[in-house]
Amino acid sequence: MPSSPEGQEFGFIDWVQQQNADPGSGIVLGIGDDAAVLSSAGGRQILVAKDVLMEGTHFTFPPATPQLAGRKSLAVNLSDLAAMGGTPTCAFVGLCLPRSRGREFAKQIHSGIQLLADEFQVPIAGGDTNIWDGPLVISITLLGEVEQGKALLRTGSQPGDMLFVTGPLGGSLPSGRHLTFTPRVALAQELSQLVDIHAMIDLSDGLARDLGHLLCPAGPGALLELHTIPIHSDVESTLSAESRLQHALNDGEDFELLFTVSTAEGQRLLQTPPAGTTLHHIGHITAESGIRLVDKYGRHSPLPVGGWEHRFAD
Amino acid sequence: MPSSPEGQEFGFIDWVQQQNADPGSGIVLGIGDDAAVLSSAGGRQILVAKDVLMEGTHFTFPPATPQLAGRKSLAVNLSDLAAMGGTPTCAFVGLCLPRSRGREFAKQIHSGIQLLADEFQVPIAGGDTNIWDGPLVISITLLGEVEQGKALLRTGSQPGDMLFVTGPLGGSLPSGRHLTFTPRVALAQELSQLVDIHAMIDLSDGLARDLGHLLCPAGPGALLELHTIPIHSDVESTLSAESRLQHALNDGEDFELLFTVSTAEGQRLLQTPPAGTTLHHIGHITAESGIRLVDKYGRHSPLPVGGWEHRFAD
Repeated sequence: MPSSPEGQEFGFIDWVQQQNADPGSGIVLGIGDDAAVLSSAGGRQILVAKDVLMEGTHFTFPPATPQLAGRKSLAVNLSDLAAMGGTPTCAFVGLCLPRSRGREFAKQIHSGIQLLADEFQVPIAGGDTNIWDGPLVISITLLGEVEQGKALLRTGSQPGDMLFVTGPLGGSLPSGRHLTFTPRVALAQELSQLVDIHAMIDLSDGLARDLGHLLCPAGPGALLELHTIPIHSDVESTLSAESRLQHALNDGEDFELLFTVSTAEGQRLLQTPPAGTTLHHIGHITAESGIRLVDKYGRHSPLPVGGWEHRFAD
Repeated sequence: MPSSPEGQEFGFIDWVQQQNADPGSGIVLGIGDDAAVLSSAGGRQILVAKDVLMEGTHFTFPPATPQLAGRKSLAVNLSDLAAMGGTPTCAFVGLCLPRSRGREFAKQIHSGIQLLADEFQVPIAGGDTNIWDGPLVISITLLGEVEQGKALLRTGSQPGDMLFVTGPLGGSLPSGRHLTFTPRVALAQELSQLVDIHAMIDLSDGLARDLGHLLCPAGPGALLELHTIPIHSDVESTLSAESRLQHALNDGEDFELLFTVSTAEGQRLLQTPPAGTTLHHIGHITAESGIRLVDKYGRHSPLPVGGWEHRFAD
């Protein structure tokens, strides 16, 4: 994927990354993946994910409830650690609570976080609680761990690799699925045990854009087989086939996992997928750079630009 | 200090803490100190501090510049790790950037963080950058480490302990010192090598309130010798002596360290303080609970209520 113009979110992050080009000892992997990887003693590495969720951007009230906003704020971090093949260990919760919404709202936010934390056995070990006159902001930092050298990175895909996605895509935002999805922590760990995963990312910005992240910065390209892309039932059924596919490619916030494995491993996965799971083989990595699409008649086309990007006013 | 009524920040945190009463294995110390302490292999423990700073609460533009707002956001976290006797290792930066302020503002925020990060040799290893229509929010998570069992906690003060503060207090907010202070990371480590520190906290909420945190929840009390409390030159010199003392007791955001040591260790510190440092012996820990004040004539009084507290509207 070409680097985006400065002034957009990704351009700013590239710039920050340049300032920290030599991350220093102890940091195995810094800015640029789903989570950072830190060295540790005892054969384990530490993972750190941090997502900041904001009222009006990542949720609005209604349709979100405060419980679901809290839940989502932890869920997106769990999804980041899933994409690294990690096991979450503890969470730190930063809150900017709107003064006018009062204490019951604050408790509901927290209980949404706590319920999911309990479900994933992730204790809340600290944080910072503030009350202000602005909108709700929830900033969660999630720590996790992974066996030494076993973190699943975005880099590492190889030409010929089969591309898989762990579930159907599209329509997450209007349906509210982005508030209630199940982070694929257990599935990622199971996949990681079953096969040698070359590269993995969780789908937050849409398949088209996140596939670009898997290929960044100057790696190989990919060919997506359009008829194999699973379209979620949340995508309006009355739309044209073309439009429904665009939703699956670009909608974002699906929080399924996208990963690549060798052809041999991929065939093995198709024959014996993890129990209770449908894996979708949607294309493969190509030596030729760029993302191309092929339809069921074998007609090729380049990927149309789409997907989510934060922008400054200037 | 009596627990504060629910609906205020501290009441809410108490409530969250109750939901996580059994923090699980791996968490040596969870919610309630300056940073969390996590177990690790290799004779070290991991420290995690997280502070969320908000435009309009922790800084306003002007008098703050974006660089100084960025700087402060890391500095307060460094101060938290200092209060644990820890060495910072890496930082994670979450940003909600106001769209209208544009990219140059964003770069200035980051450069303020980066300059202090470089000064303290703390690489930025990750984070989350967002652009929105709300005010600036900077949420930094700072990781650090400390030798196994050597973290300096808020708990641990004993009757008879001498109380020390590392610098003069008061007037930090109006003078802008809260934006430019030097976190006492090196001094805390030096003190920790020199003497057996029983309890330590950094002064963010004001001496009176933070001393209360050192005694919480049902520990001993303290006697403050008023004539020994160092009043910062930032406190308006035209005020009455009584009023200037109130500022030193309650103003907040001094980010000096408050700590207790045994009498023998305290005497040793007074005779040979760390080079280039003035330590102020301001009182002692008492078996009797509560905080009392004594003036230079030996007259005792209870501590008047004061200090900073976030509140909900309801």
